[in-house]
Amino acid sequence: MVNYPHKLSSKKKQEVTSQTKNFANRGMTFEKMINATNDYYLTHGLAVIHKKPTPVQIVRVDYPQRSRAKIVEAYFRQASTTDYSGVYEGFYIDFEAKETKQKHAIPMKNFHPHQIRHMEQVLEQKGICFVLLHFSSYQETYLLPALDLVRFYHQDMGKKSMPLDYIKEFGYVIEQSAFPQIPYLDTVKQHLLGGKTI
Amino acid sequence: MVNYPHKLSSKKKQEVTSQTKNFANRGMTFEKMINATNDYYLTHGLAVIHKKPTPVQIVRVDYPQRSRAKIVEAYFRQASTTDYSGVYEGFYIDFEAKETKQKHAIPMKNFHPHQIRHMEQVLEQKGICFVLLHFSSYQETYLLPALDLVRFYHQDMGKKSMPLDYIKEFGYVIEQSAFPQIPYLDTVKQHLLGGKTI
Repeated sequence: MVNYPHKLSSKKKQEVTSQTKNFANRGMTFEKMINATNDYYLTHGLAVIHKKPTPVQIVRVDYPQRSRAKIVEAYFRQASTTDYSGVYEGFYIDFEAKETKQKHAIPMKNFHPHQIRHMEQVLEQKGICFVLLHFSSYQETYLLPALDLVRFYHQDMGKKSMPLDYIKEFGYVIEQSAFPQIPYLDTVKQHLLGGKTI
Repeated sequence: MVNYPHKLSSKKKQEVTSQTKNFANRGMTFEKMINATNDYYLTHGLAVIHKKPTPVQIVRVDYPQRSRAKIVEAYFRQASTTDYSGVYEGFYIDFEAKETKQKHAIPMKNFHPHQIRHMEQVLEQKGICFVLLHFSSYQETYLLPALDLVRFYHQDMGKKSMPLDYIKEFGYVIEQSAFPQIPYLDTVKQHLLGGKTI
């Protein structure tokens, strides 16, 4: 019982630290953090990376007089590529971002066969390709090279999810910061380009 | 008058040649030819280049029971980037494709300020960036480097259209073929990469 107040205090301290760490990004979804990061890269002239528009199959469009065309029937299509692509110093950059509330793994249903195929095609063309995986319960983000995702996909097709341990073994943790929020380009430069220049 | 039948015959011959030349692509819109070209490059493992989805602002979605989500109100948004992007041997490739029925120039209203700004950003990041310009009345296609488009845009803001002579001076003609239809990658390799490799 002597230690009880001490323990409480320690826990409280931990909470405060944790709050401080994530303060800048609190309440933002992972997608918004990435978009803000890409905006930061763009406005600072560091990279040109955009999210692709949501693919939509347009069935019917009305053209009301004196106003702009209105789509009145359309459906979401499954993306055949990844969500983000662009250029950094001449290099083609291509990635997908996924968020999970799970603590020890990410469900593999997050990655469609089409997207896996696209990543393979990009790798064959020597593109820089990876996934950003966000564990929202810890607010931790990892960059996993597409090669390691593709290997897991083919070796462990039966497995429903990819363990965090696998991600930690082959991927790289990305420390969140205020500006930019998810500085994935540092990781790309350090680990994926290996000193390559164009 | 002695030469008349000869002249007729010559003209006829020319028509036949011209028909043969464009036979493979007859009736295809320029966009379809480019998409077919990109499909060819993809399936032959030569490059991974996709058209971006049309940007749509989704306002209202219905979720009918036991069927998929239906978008019932949406509007077209103006594209803030170019239509095509992808990777060739590690290089970032980015382009816009435009078609005109005019014979001696292409209207500059085809290029929105946002797209010009995007091309400038891509060039700053050392991306390979250009426009494919198609003159449908001749069935002739030119690749004009983005640098030359951007220069024209800033130097001749007042001008409503870019003359074919300017395009011929700074661009490269792309000979149509059957497979792939618009082999722009050959022009990129020959004139835009200048022997660069990653």
